[in-house]
Amino acid sequence: MTVQLEPVPDHVPLPPGFRAAGLHCGLKKNQQLDLGLLLADSPVPAAAIYTQNQLVGAHIHVCRDHLLRSNGHVRAVLVNARNANCATGQQGIDDARTCCRELALRLRCPVEQILMCSTGPIGAPLPVPRIVSHLDALLERASPNGALDFARAIMTTDTYPKALAQSGPGGTCTGFAKGSGMIHPNMATMLGFLLTDGTLGNGRAPALLQRAADRSFHRVTVDGDTSPNDTLVLLASGKAKGEGAVEPTLTELAQQLARRIAADGEGATRLVTVQVRGARSEAEATTVGRVIATSPLVKTAVAGRDPNWGRILSAAGRAGVPFPAERARVWVGPASVYELGVPFPEREALAHQHLTSETEIVLGVDLASGAAAADVWTCDFTKDYVQINADYRS
Amino acid sequence: MTVQLEPVPDHVPLPPGFRAAGLHCGLKKNQQLDLGLLLADSPVPAAAIYTQNQLVGAHIHVCRDHLLRSNGHVRAVLVNARNANCATGQQGIDDARTCCRELALRLRCPVEQILMCSTGPIGAPLPVPRIVSHLDALLERASPNGALDFARAIMTTDTYPKALAQSGPGGTCTGFAKGSGMIHPNMATMLGFLLTDGTLGNGRAPALLQRAADRSFHRVTVDGDTSPNDTLVLLASGKAKGEGAVEPTLTELAQQLARRIAADGEGATRLVTVQVRGARSEAEATTVGRVIATSPLVKTAVAGRDPNWGRILSAAGRAGVPFPAERARVWVGPASVYELGVPFPEREALAHQHLTSETEIVLGVDLASGAAAADVWTCDFTKDYVQINADYRS
Repeated sequence: MTVQLEPVPDHVPLPPGFRAAGLHCGLKKNQQLDLGLLLADSPVPAAAIYTQNQLVGAHIHVCRDHLLRSNGHVRAVLVNARNANCATGQQGIDDARTCCRELALRLRCPVEQILMCSTGPIGAPLPVPRIVSHLDALLERASPNGALDFARAIMTTDTYPKALAQSGPGGTCTGFAKGSGMIHPNMATMLGFLLTDGTLGNGRAPALLQRAADRSFHRVTVDGDTSPNDTLVLLASGKAKGEGAVEPTLTELAQQLARRIAADGEGATRLVTVQVRGARSEAEATTVGRVIATSPLVKTAVAGRDPNWGRILSAAGRAGVPFPAERARVWVGPASVYELGVPFPEREALAHQHLTSETEIVLGVDLASGAAAADVWTCDFTKDYVQINADYRS
Repeated sequence: MTVQLEPVPDHVPLPPGFRAAGLHCGLKKNQQLDLGLLLADSPVPAAAIYTQNQLVGAHIHVCRDHLLRSNGHVRAVLVNARNANCATGQQGIDDARTCCRELALRLRCPVEQILMCSTGPIGAPLPVPRIVSHLDALLERASPNGALDFARAIMTTDTYPKALAQSGPGGTCTGFAKGSGMIHPNMATMLGFLLTDGTLGNGRAPALLQRAADRSFHRVTVDGDTSPNDTLVLLASGKAKGEGAVEPTLTELAQQLARRIAADGEGATRLVTVQVRGARSEAEATTVGRVIATSPLVKTAVAGRDPNWGRILSAAGRAGVPFPAERARVWVGPASVYELGVPFPEREALAHQHLTSETEIVLGVDLASGAAAADVWTCDFTKDYVQINADYRS
């Protein structure tokens, strides 16, 4: 099961200055696309942020090194699925470097202008010859129409490709994401890629990306687990003519992608938006929202269509953020089920109706402590999640 | 499903100076015991620790107040199941005080020498008359043989009563616990009671209880959720003749009770001991152990009998404790499945065998950072857990 917010589009445009491609190189079965490429016409300002896990995939060592050496400029990003190149030691790092070097040779650019990301099961060596032997074909296919092929090539247990385009005063933005659990079965990766023709000179890309991530990918959780390979990359071609700031558009796009990751969570039947209001700061609102969104008891209650306000309030209460529980408010969709220390059982029918009839549902809590707010996205927690994750390797 | 570590004993002794009782007052169905009493022959040194949740049950306000006013001396502890008296506002606090006052009248002691604990669904008013009208009968039944009746009276979704006795150089200790999830369906409570005839004068009880809890109940997790009513109480009659310190015996007893809470976790088929070794401090070892023990991916892997070392290492990696992943070691039972950055797939058969054939299983990680260690207890995460928690109120 999964929640698909809208049909997969026939076409997703790329911002001017970018091409993309995806093909089958033999890592996945059944001719499914498993090798993807994002290509800029020339080196463009770029930034990346990575997992906070102590265990990190080989590609993260290489990306960090390349961005440092290129002073944050990137010509191309190569992505493979079905192999995380993680827990593979020095050989894994050497393998990722080899793939980057081979692509750089073909593009006649410095190797440090190439990034690589890997996603899939961990612990197996990267099949370098299989990847390198398909680089020429991948470059040939790179086109302004390649967005959906790229989105398909980076999928692992995702049930649909996640590619979206959005325009604003600062330019056009196209984003990609994969990751139907924060970790997939056997640990793959949350990967995200944001392209824009907006102008991000003077090293502005890293700070902008951090702010956008803090309000999008860092507010989504499927199971609370993070992967060793999580990576988010931003590339900005600067080809837009407009003058406006591109940050609002990029942030909105990143949020839409984050919502789709939650909606496509393993076993999900509901996309859940956790609304935290009345907090002292946005950071505290986010902390409380994350604890609610990670609580197995809240998430199983949604799976059971149970407007269990006590579990929501109790999860909020263990987030380490002080608030007066006797003045708090809890709502489920349109129904305010707990106010000023008192439950309203007669309103639970309306809340139950919301849980039953909508696939995008809202759980909210007002902490009665201030004026700050944050939304966090998650999905319900079903027996299918347990089945997928218990039986994966058997 | 549940893991029962040994048959329920026919009899559990109480330390000299204590009596106990349990009876049916009408809160549970089918004549099941639902009102319990622990009674000291005279007021004894006592301590309690409570949930860290911002939402707290009414009894916690009353216990805090009474222990303060009695200078940490307690004559009796009254416990009811099937009603948490939580989210019940000022009325709930008044109700708990009424129950304490009525018991104090009958014992001819100051009201502040009475503690009360409640466990069960939250949001409903406490049925005070039903409880008060059974106090005389409860006092009549109080006896040195009442331990198992008390243990049964405090159960909610537990599948068996948890009472254990243990002796050491400092005296005899008897402990009780309930809580088959850290929160039960609809939020009940982890409750624990430790009685000893050891001597704990000079206000030593609170610090000793905190140390014992940090090494026992604070190292067990079923679902990562904590309840508004969690309470642990220690009473020390001082009647033992020996001179030795009672702390090691109390700590060991508390650990045994904590293990039983994990073993009786909702839907559990395996008791899991997470062994963290090679940490810089016991606190860091505990932190890493808790994250592994809470990870849905680790717990579903155990449910699937999958020795998924990658999930264990990755959970350790997101605990916020730095360690060199390339020098770490991971084991599943007798099988060392990851060493010095390299997996050993050929050893997974032995690990799989351990997961399949044992009901008490071991997952371990060596952080290669120091000499400190900690064990944390949890259970596997099955479809039955989701079923129990999704369907509870439907």
